[in-house]
Amino acid sequence: MHCGTDTWHTEHDGQGDPAVCWRCQVRVLFRVPPSAAISSLFGADFPLPTHHHSDYEFLSAAFTEFSPTAAVHFGEQRSAPYSMIDRSKSIFTQANNVLGTINVLYAIKEFAPQCHLVKLGTMGEYGTPNIDIEEGFITITHNGRTDTLPYPKQGGSFYHLSKIHDSHNIHFACKAWGIRCTDLNQGVVYGVATPETIADPVLINRLDYDGVFGTALNRFVIQAAVGHPLTVYGKGGQTRGFLDIRDTVRCVQLAIDSPANVGEFRVFNQFTEQFSVNDLARLVTEAGAKVGLKVTSKSVPNPRTEMEEHYYNAKHSKLEGLGLVPHLLGDALLDSLLKCVQQRYTVHVSACTDPLLRASFLAQLRHQVQGPREHEGDPARRRLEGCWKRNRQDTQEQDRALKAPGGVCVSGRRCARQPGFC
Amino acid sequence: MHCGTDTWHTEHDGQGDPAVCWRCQVRVLFRVPPSAAISSLFGADFPLPTHHHSDYEFLSAAFTEFSPTAAVHFGEQRSAPYSMIDRSKSIFTQANNVLGTINVLYAIKEFAPQCHLVKLGTMGEYGTPNIDIEEGFITITHNGRTDTLPYPKQGGSFYHLSKIHDSHNIHFACKAWGIRCTDLNQGVVYGVATPETIADPVLINRLDYDGVFGTALNRFVIQAAVGHPLTVYGKGGQTRGFLDIRDTVRCVQLAIDSPANVGEFRVFNQFTEQFSVNDLARLVTEAGAKVGLKVTSKSVPNPRTEMEEHYYNAKHSKLEGLGLVPHLLGDALLDSLLKCVQQRYTVHVSACTDPLLRASFLAQLRHQVQGPREHEGDPARRRLEGCWKRNRQDTQEQDRALKAPGGVCVSGRRCARQPGFC
Repeated sequence: MHCGTDTWHTEHDGQGDPAVCWRCQVRVLFRVPPSAAISSLFGADFPLPTHHHSDYEFLSAAFTEFSPTAAVHFGEQRSAPYSMIDRSKSIFTQANNVLGTINVLYAIKEFAPQCHLVKLGTMGEYGTPNIDIEEGFITITHNGRTDTLPYPKQGGSFYHLSKIHDSHNIHFACKAWGIRCTDLNQGVVYGVATPETIADPVLINRLDYDGVFGTALNRFVIQAAVGHPLTVYGKGGQTRGFLDIRDTVRCVQLAIDSPANVGEFRVFNQFTEQFSVNDLARLVTEAGAKVGLKVTSKSVPNPRTEMEEHYYNAKHSKLEGLGLVPHLLGDALLDSLLKCVQQRYTVHVSACTDPLLRASFLAQLRHQVQGPREHEGDPARRRLEGCWKRNRQDTQEQDRALKAPGGVCVSGRRCARQPGFC
Repeated sequence: MHCGTDTWHTEHDGQGDPAVCWRCQVRVLFRVPPSAAISSLFGADFPLPTHHHSDYEFLSAAFTEFSPTAAVHFGEQRSAPYSMIDRSKSIFTQANNVLGTINVLYAIKEFAPQCHLVKLGTMGEYGTPNIDIEEGFITITHNGRTDTLPYPKQGGSFYHLSKIHDSHNIHFACKAWGIRCTDLNQGVVYGVATPETIADPVLINRLDYDGVFGTALNRFVIQAAVGHPLTVYGKGGQTRGFLDIRDTVRCVQLAIDSPANVGEFRVFNQFTEQFSVNDLARLVTEAGAKVGLKVTSKSVPNPRTEMEEHYYNAKHSKLEGLGLVPHLLGDALLDSLLKCVQQRYTVHVSACTDPLLRASFLAQLRHQVQGPREHEGDPARRRLEGCWKRNRQDTQEQDRALKAPGGVCVSGRRCARQPGFC
């Protein structure tokens, strides 16, 4: 059972633009694959009701009728930069995430008390302490006495803080109500495809490349593919935990298969390797060279409040103890990721409010479209042409919208271009 | 400058019942003294605009126009039991407290960046760890490395958790935006009067004695005064920090007089002595005997999820370092508190939804009113008579209202009797 929304998805006709979300006055970011399509692909009835977790009546009915063994809660606004754009987005992020999770906790308590909650947290809850990061708890000896306590948290954005608040609230609910929970403190995810998403184009995965919803490695790969310098924030020594998107899915499965005990708040650090931003830039540069791309890097002013050089050593043994065999980031993965991006996604990359990336992408797209005419009439060429025209038109519309007070852009299926969104 | 609300206060005509709050459909809990009265008492212009901190337009204007050196933020739902009554009250507590504080942080950042935020936290953020509690931060040595990190937090209710979330959010805002803040992690307050509140009856302080908004020692004193057994939750070994209400006010003053540095998130543990619930019961019993009251205690099932026997040793030296000279809880204070309660407050104690306390109080009141008729015609007797009749009538109304689905009781100025409120 998947309850809640990942950023935003709501019901729409599946054809044109998705519906406008009445809550924050933006269009939804991506459509949910029709449940009929999923059911036919996997040969099983696969109901996929779509609601927001602020709708407690829906949650009550869903937990009562479905009586789930486990509930996977990914339903949160998931971007740190988005949460820092302005006051309303900070408020929205914490209201959506923290209050929504309280609703999920109450729904479990009242209607499915044996249900195992599998909740998506983030490694960003820990910040960058100068000591080793443990998995959720740390044993402290202080003035001759010892206790095992929640690991101290230091969020770097109102988004990360919302996850910290969730962890505290859930920990309390486990103790007070006997709820069982696994909090997956996930690292930065890279990659595009899982065996499930490549089963049919209708299940193709969303790829964010921008500075707000995009994650670092995916953004670097897109930048390499479109010939834009990799944008390294500040000194590039920022180090984080990373994992392949296939391991993300596997970790959720492992948590469900070995549930937490009644009343247990269990924390897994869900990543497989640590890299600094400079490490990532170097790896993408090397992988690009192998497929004929000349990749350069460029340091840009760091928009975040964070240490750019620091100690970082985070434990991550619990999921491996349950059987996770990590897909490590090697040349083969980076090569295939680059090729996949080049083949599948560059035509979908929409004009972006990041002027650097937008200008570079449009220049490349224009070159592809307005280059040698030898492929005229070719279906691929026609698609590219249409994409470029749409992008150009959208960009003009967007520029106008951005200049209007509180302007909101229209969007295609893959990219909502509210100011600051992408 | 006092921004926000303590539980609820809103604009009303200052005469009849205060207005109904549209947000949670309850009446406000107490009225704010008219600013004209305060101004005339203290001989200075004392504007007291009353708004909710969800009203960002008000906050913007207030911080811009007033340009405060310090802002004291007491504007939060302050009851742990209230936050645990049901889902809507958990949601309300965290929304009101956490989102309201984000608004205050943004208002300071945008309109008064030098303003020193003095924020009311709670000692309950720490829970009851098996190691000494430090003031906000703890130095941890782990695997051969050392760092000073936020003290691990373990809230025991959605109210305490809301304060934990505030602390994390404010700490981040101090680091990211250079805001200066003092977080006063306050213990349990006892006492009724300060030199300011006894200056005029219009400033008389609110006294909560119930199981939801009342604090332990005040409740025990009221129970002793009306002849009800002191209600000890469980084993009574629960130990917390306590302080005199006069020290509360003094601590705020000391924090303002020695502000935090730019970007500093400073935490003071604001209490002066530690007591267990059994300690308090013993002290009140002894003090009662001295003024002729026979006080008994009774263990009742503990409605809270908490350890009833535990280690507790919390540091509290920073405020004393700034000059706090504590009013310790001695016989003299307890005697005067008991007398004050007997003289001033028993006639105000309204019928309570706690059947034990209500029955006991009404029996005592009835005895006072229906006893020897020697004082017939006496103004004090007439007041008592009116109070009893009003209580009896209100209780009947309340019983009816409690039986109605979602019923809400009407209330006088000093006691809002929504089910679960008192």
